[in-house]
Amino acid sequence: MYPLFVNMKNKKVVIAGGGKIAYRRLLALLKEEADITVISPTAIDEIVQLANERKIIWHQRPIEHTDYKDAFLIIAATNDPEVNKQIAQDASPHQLVNVASDHESGNVHIPSFFSRGKLTIAVTTEGASPSLAKAIKEKLEEIFDESYEDYVSFLYEQRKKLKEMDLPEKEKKKKLSELLHQFIEKEL
Amino acid sequence: MYPLFVNMKNKKVVIAGGGKIAYRRLLALLKEEADITVISPTAIDEIVQLANERKIIWHQRPIEHTDYKDAFLIIAATNDPEVNKQIAQDASPHQLVNVASDHESGNVHIPSFFSRGKLTIAVTTEGASPSLAKAIKEKLEEIFDESYEDYVSFLYEQRKKLKEMDLPEKEKKKKLSELLHQFIEKEL
Repeated sequence: MYPLFVNMKNKKVVIAGGGKIAYRRLLALLKEEADITVISPTAIDEIVQLANERKIIWHQRPIEHTDYKDAFLIIAATNDPEVNKQIAQDASPHQLVNVASDHESGNVHIPSFFSRGKLTIAVTTEGASPSLAKAIKEKLEEIFDESYEDYVSFLYEQRKKLKEMDLPEKEKKKKLSELLHQFIEKEL
Repeated sequence: MYPLFVNMKNKKVVIAGGGKIAYRRLLALLKEEADITVISPTAIDEIVQLANERKIIWHQRPIEHTDYKDAFLIIAATNDPEVNKQIAQDASPHQLVNVASDHESGNVHIPSFFSRGKLTIAVTTEGASPSLAKAIKEKLEEIFDESYEDYVSFLYEQRKKLKEMDLPEKEKKKKLSELLHQFIEKEL
């Protein structure tokens, strides 16, 4: 599996299912400003509320192929593994499909992950042990605590400033490398 | 940016450019058994050799729109930032596009990452500081050393065995959680 960090802004995401897994996926994708449609005969209160607030669209019925034929990302998270599998089979090979109930179906895994500003660390075990992925993620959240957010933006700003400066390329690289190494020796 | 681990097997990948960055991306994608075409008037020896060995296709000319209109993933890594930007603009919104020279163009970032069997950890700073991402990745490679490969497959096998056992669901979860916690207390 190849890791990609994808800009989901305004991308059409179709989620089949209205349970806790659907909701967890939905929350993270809402943060990324994706265009989300949930399709499910039933949904937990949290999903209903988001639909009422018009933050997402909820169609209260079983999913059909036409619902996801133009989706960028499909999340098959119904409580029926057969339905989820069928969705993965019916999707076009160019679509991104995540099947919550079966890591072998679909072509996309969604890892455990966390962010500190522009820094994001993602952990997956490709379904071998989701609890291990989660435990490792939690450990990394401790190591890379919230102070990293400031540090990453500091490095980002310094890098931008250096790029604009009238210095030889080699000198710029050297300065940036010094900044980084000071940090690494102290923090990592 | 939303992290996805994507199954690249047999997926059409078009790489514009034949330099070191193109080669680095290419190597990782080849491992994932992607179907890779490099399009570039010139290419470094390593790329030429892979083309000679028929592991990839290399078209020795500048890229045109028709080259990537059916690609699943496009990597714009020519040495001309304007060409790279143009590729990102011409791609359809459903295509995955990575622009090596400009992290704001395109819709996909490729993180620093490493694997230990089924465990993969990916780090990105969304272009804020690629060197920091790399340094963090290297630090994590030390923490999660090669012994993790065995451990992850052990957990995977135990999970499979437990799933097949005639035990109440609750009991299975408890046993799996115990295994995991023994490890976490010892190793993490």
